[in-house]
Amino acid sequence: MSFDAVDVIRTKRDGGSLSPEQIDWAVAAYTRGEIAEEQMAALAMAILLRGMTRAEVARWTEAMIRSGERMDWSRLDRPTTDKHSTGGVGDKITLPLAPTVAACGAAVPQLSGRGLGHTGGTLDKLESIPGWRASLSNEEMLDVLGKAGAVVCAAGSGLAPADRKLYALRDVTGTVESIPLIASSIMSKKIAEGTGALVLDVKAGSGAFMKNADDARELARTMVDIGSDHGVNTVALLTAMETPLGLTVGNAVEVAESVEVLSGGGPADVVELTVALAREMLAAAGLTGAKDPAEALRDGSAMDAWRQMISAQGGDPDAALPVANETCQVAAPATGVLTRLDAYGVGVAAWRLGAGRARKEDPVSHAAGITLHAKPGDRVREGEPLLTLHADTADRFGRALEALEGAYEIGEAFTESPLIIDRIA
Amino acid sequence: MSFDAVDVIRTKRDGGSLSPEQIDWAVAAYTRGEIAEEQMAALAMAILLRGMTRAEVARWTEAMIRSGERMDWSRLDRPTTDKHSTGGVGDKITLPLAPTVAACGAAVPQLSGRGLGHTGGTLDKLESIPGWRASLSNEEMLDVLGKAGAVVCAAGSGLAPADRKLYALRDVTGTVESIPLIASSIMSKKIAEGTGALVLDVKAGSGAFMKNADDARELARTMVDIGSDHGVNTVALLTAMETPLGLTVGNAVEVAESVEVLSGGGPADVVELTVALAREMLAAAGLTGAKDPAEALRDGSAMDAWRQMISAQGGDPDAALPVANETCQVAAPATGVLTRLDAYGVGVAAWRLGAGRARKEDPVSHAAGITLHAKPGDRVREGEPLLTLHADTADRFGRALEALEGAYEIGEAFTESPLIIDRIA
Repeated sequence: MSFDAVDVIRTKRDGGSLSPEQIDWAVAAYTRGEIAEEQMAALAMAILLRGMTRAEVARWTEAMIRSGERMDWSRLDRPTTDKHSTGGVGDKITLPLAPTVAACGAAVPQLSGRGLGHTGGTLDKLESIPGWRASLSNEEMLDVLGKAGAVVCAAGSGLAPADRKLYALRDVTGTVESIPLIASSIMSKKIAEGTGALVLDVKAGSGAFMKNADDARELARTMVDIGSDHGVNTVALLTAMETPLGLTVGNAVEVAESVEVLSGGGPADVVELTVALAREMLAAAGLTGAKDPAEALRDGSAMDAWRQMISAQGGDPDAALPVANETCQVAAPATGVLTRLDAYGVGVAAWRLGAGRARKEDPVSHAAGITLHAKPGDRVREGEPLLTLHADTADRFGRALEALEGAYEIGEAFTESPLIIDRIA
Repeated sequence: MSFDAVDVIRTKRDGGSLSPEQIDWAVAAYTRGEIAEEQMAALAMAILLRGMTRAEVARWTEAMIRSGERMDWSRLDRPTTDKHSTGGVGDKITLPLAPTVAACGAAVPQLSGRGLGHTGGTLDKLESIPGWRASLSNEEMLDVLGKAGAVVCAAGSGLAPADRKLYALRDVTGTVESIPLIASSIMSKKIAEGTGALVLDVKAGSGAFMKNADDARELARTMVDIGSDHGVNTVALLTAMETPLGLTVGNAVEVAESVEVLSGGGPADVVELTVALAREMLAAAGLTGAKDPAEALRDGSAMDAWRQMISAQGGDPDAALPVANETCQVAAPATGVLTRLDAYGVGVAAWRLGAGRARKEDPVSHAAGITLHAKPGDRVREGEPLLTLHADTADRFGRALEALEGAYEIGEAFTESPLIIDRIA
C-alpha cells in the first residue's frame, strides 16, 4: 500500500493517530529513501509534540525491526536474556553483569554501543583490554555464546537500518527528546537482537538522559509495553543517576573496577545493581531455580565466564590495562561529609579528559578517566584527595577541572537515597 | 553572530520565543544552505505547532525581505498601492482593479503568481491574451507603470529568495498551514515589492485556503500587523468565498468578464469587490480626493488604463481570446432557487478541465474553464443550463463532472449573505 508523505505528516501534526498501514509505509519508504529527510524531520517533530499511542509505538517499533534482520538464538540450549541501560556516568554494569548471568545458566547475547557525549559506551570500555574485538559475525557471536554464555559486541549494520537512519536525522533536527521515538529506537534494536527476555535499567538524574524520575518512569513504561507487545518478557528498574556509579569513570579504570566486582569485591553500589539486574534477568528468562548471582560473584564462576568471554573475543584477561601518562589530584576544600558529587559534572570532566567523544568518528583514550576517593555520605578531610583525573596529556586538565566546578559539596547533613527507585513490569 | 541549528529548533519546540538574532541567523543560514532542509523542516513544524509572537513574525518577515532585493518606486510621481488576495475561485479581481486604481491616480506595481491547485493564478489568466508577457525587468516594470499607471507581472528570483526556498520545503513537509508562516511569506514578497500601501483580500469559505472566518481574521490581523511594523500602510478586507466570484472560472473566460467590468458592466459581486478594494487602495495611499473607482469604470478611464497596461506588456487588447474546442452543459435538475453553488467543487472542476495545474511545471489550458448561468439566489428551471464546461478535449469532462457532484443545491429558501464580511485595519 502506498500513501502520500504529506498526508501522513498532517495526520500526526493535527493530533491524529497514524494507522498501522501508514506507519508500515512511512518507515519502509523512509528506509528506501522515498520519503525525504525533510519529510521525516517534520514527521519526527510532529511525533515529538503530539505523542503516539501505545498501538502506534508498537507498530512503529515493529516496522523498524522489519527494516532489517532479526537474529535467532533458538540453536542455543539455554534461554537468552539481556539488559539495556539508558546510559549513565560510571555505568560499567554490563561488564560484571553479563558473565554473572551466564554463570547462573542463561545466555546473554548483548549488542552494545559506543559512547557519545558525557556517558561512556560499553564497547569503548571493553576495547581498553588488549586484543579484544567488538565486531563479530553472527556465527562468531554464537560461538562465543556457546563457550562463555555471554557475548558483548557491536551491532551489525543489518539490524534495524531504519533506526540507524532515523537516529542520525533526529540528532541534527532537535527531535531526540521524544519518549515514543527513544523507546522505539532502543526496543527495535533489542528485539531485532533476538533476546527472549530483557531487563531495562532506566536511569534518572543529572547524569542521565532523563533528568527526572517521572520522565524516566514514562520511558520505562513505554519500553516495557513495547517488549510485551512483541513477546519479549520485559522488566524495567528505575535507578538513580545523581552521582557516578562506583569509584571510577572512564574506560580502563572501569574495566579494572568491574574485575574487582567479579573477584567478589568492588564498590557496594556496583555490586548492588549488578546483583539486582542479574536476578531480574534470570527471572525474566524463567530461570527461577538458578544459582544466585551474589553466589556466582563469590564462588568465582562469574569471573570464569568473564575470562572465557574476553578470551573468546581475542582479549587477554590477564594483560595490563592502559595507564594514563598524566594525573591530577582534586583535593577536598574542607573537612566534613561529601553531600553531593554530581554525575553530570564528573561525566563531562571524564569526557573532556578524553574518555568520551564529541563526534561519532572521534577516537577515545582508553587510559583517560576519573577515580573517586569518596562517595556522597563519606567523610573527607580538607586537603586530602577527592578525585584523581587521568589523561594522556596534561593540557586536558584545565577544561576538565572547569566541568567539576560546583560539582561537589561538603557539609554535614547527608540523607542516603535509594539506588533502585522503582520496578516497572 | 552564529548559532547552533539544533538549539534554535529546541527553543521553538519547547514553546519559547526565538530571539531577533536567532531569527536573522536561521533565515540567512537556511538561504545559504548552512541550515539543512531537514533542520528547517523540523523548525517549520515546531513553528506551526507552537506559533510565533507578533515580534517574531515581524522579524522573520524582515529576515526574508533582507535575503534579497527590495524594489524602489521613489522615482514615480505618484504614490504606490497594491492588493493581495489569499486566493479564491473565479477571483479575477486584480484584472479590473489594477487599471481602475491607476485611472484614479495611484500607481499599482503588482508582482503576481501562477495558480496551483483549485485556485487560479492572475498571470495564467492574463497569459490567455495573445502576446502578453508576464516576465519583465525592473526597468520594464517602471516603464509600464509610467505609461499605464499599473503593471501586473511575475516576481523575479531576486525577491525574498528565502521565502521561495522555504515555501517549496513547506509544500512537501505538511507545514503550509501555519498562520505566521503564511503571513510572513505573503508579506515578505509584498514588502520587498516596494509598495507604499497594501490592501489584503483575505478570503474565507469552501473555495479559500482558510475555510472559516476566525482563521481568516487571524491571518488578516497577522498580516496587517506585519505591514504596520514595516511602515507599509496595510488594511485587510475579509471576504466570502463560499461561491465563485462572478460568472466565470478559468483563464480566458475570466479575462472576458473582467473586460465587461471595465466596460461598465459585469456581475454585481465582481463590481462590488473591485470598487471596494479600489477605494481601500486609494485611501491607503493617501489619495482621499481622487476620482471614485465606480466613476472610473463608468467613464472609460479604467478601460483606457487596462488597454495601455496590456499593450505595454506586449498584449493585444483587441485580439480574440482562446475558445475551447469542446463544451458540456450541466442542466438544473429541478425548478426552484439555486441555494448553493460551492466554490471548492467548481474550482476543482475547472482545475480538472485544464484551467489549473497540479504541479508547478505543468502548463495550463487558457480556454478551459466554467461559465455559470446562475448564482445562488437566482431562480432556475429544470433542464435549463446551470453551468457550461469548457475544455480542449472532451475526455476532461468526466472527472470535472464528478467534482461537481453535490456542489449545487436547488431549493426555495435563500438568505443573501454579505460578500465583504469584515475590515481589519
